[in-house]
Amino acid sequence: MIARTPQKRIAHVYGVLETARDMADRFGENRAQAEVAALLHDYAKAMPAAEQLAEARRRNLIVDPTEELSPGLLHGPVGAALLEEQGLVTDPSVLDAIRWHTTGRVGMSRLAMVLYVADAIEPTRDYPGVDEIREAARRDLAEATLKAADAVIRFVVDNGWLMHMYTVQTRNWLLTR
Amino acid sequence: MIARTPQKRIAHVYGVLETARDMADRFGENRAQAEVAALLHDYAKAMPAAEQLAEARRRNLIVDPTEELSPGLLHGPVGAALLEEQGLVTDPSVLDAIRWHTTGRVGMSRLAMVLYVADAIEPTRDYPGVDEIREAARRDLAEATLKAADAVIRFVVDNGWLMHMYTVQTRNWLLTR
Repeated sequence: MIARTPQKRIAHVYGVLETARDMADRFGENRAQAEVAALLHDYAKAMPAAEQLAEARRRNLIVDPTEELSPGLLHGPVGAALLEEQGLVTDPSVLDAIRWHTTGRVGMSRLAMVLYVADAIEPTRDYPGVDEIREAARRDLAEATLKAADAVIRFVVDNGWLMHMYTVQTRNWLLTR
Repeated sequence: MIARTPQKRIAHVYGVLETARDMADRFGENRAQAEVAALLHDYAKAMPAAEQLAEARRRNLIVDPTEELSPGLLHGPVGAALLEEQGLVTDPSVLDAIRWHTTGRVGMSRLAMVLYVADAIEPTRDYPGVDEIREAARRDLAEATLKAADAVIRFVVDNGWLMHMYTVQTRNWLLTR
C-alpha cells in the first residue's frame, strides 16, 4: 500500500498529522483522535472518481448535486463509510471529522475543525493567504476554520470549479455563532 | 419622491437603465421590459432593513436564513411583491427580474440576467474585475452573469459578509449548463 502511495500524498498526510497533533494540544482536543483522523482522512482519496460516486450513491450519501459532477468531493464521506463498515474506526467523532474534512459542515465539532484547518495549512501547502490561516491557527480555532473556508471559496471561484453548499453554509455559520 | 432620493442612487438607477437597454438590444431581449425592470429594480431599496424583513416574513418570502441577518438582500423580492400587489407591474418576466436581481436564481431568464449584469457593471460601478465583466457583457450574456456572480462571491468573502445560497447555486448552474 505504502509503496504505491505517491511521495507527495505521504508528505501531505504526515504534514496533516503533525499539524493536527499540535493544534489538538493547543486547543485542548484529544490528541489520539486528532492523530487517527489525520492519518486516515484521505482513506478514499485514491479511489477513482466514478467509484467514489458509485459508493456514495449506494449509501445515499449525496448531500449536494455538485458531488455528482465533482465526485472528488466525496472522498471524506465515502472514506468514513468504508472505515466504519469494515470496523476499522468506531469513534464517531473521528469518523465525523473525516467525513466533513473537505466541505465542512454546519455544527462541525472542534475536532473536525482541527482536521479541516490542518488539511489546509500543513507545511507542504502553498497558496495565497495560507500564512494568514496559519497565524489564525495559532490563536483561534473557529477563526482559522473561517479563514480556511474563505480560502476554499476564493480558490473555487478563481478556478471556475463548482462550489459545494456545505462550504458556504459552514462559513455563514462561523460568521454568526 | 425624487427630491428625497440621493444623487448617488439616481445615477445608479439611470446607469442600470442605459446599460440594461444596450444589453437587451445586443442580446435580443425586449427593450421595454429591460427598461421598466431597470427603473424599478431598487423600488424597495430605501425601505429600512427591519421593514424589509417584516414585509418578507408576512409574505413567506424568506428563502435563505442569511436574509434574516442581512435583510437588505430582500429588497428584490419585497420590491417585486409590492409592485405586483399594488397593480403597478403585471408583467411576470419583469417582476421576476426585479425579484432576483441581487441574489440570482437557478434557471433565471435572460431578461433577469440582463438586469443582474447591468446592476453590476453600470458606469458608476468601480471595483476590481468590473471591466472584465463589462467585456464579457459585450459578447456573452451567460458568461457575464457568471463573472458577475464570481465578483459578488469574492466581494462577500473579502468583506466578511454572509453569503446567500442563491448566488452560489446560480453560479454552479451557469457553470454546468
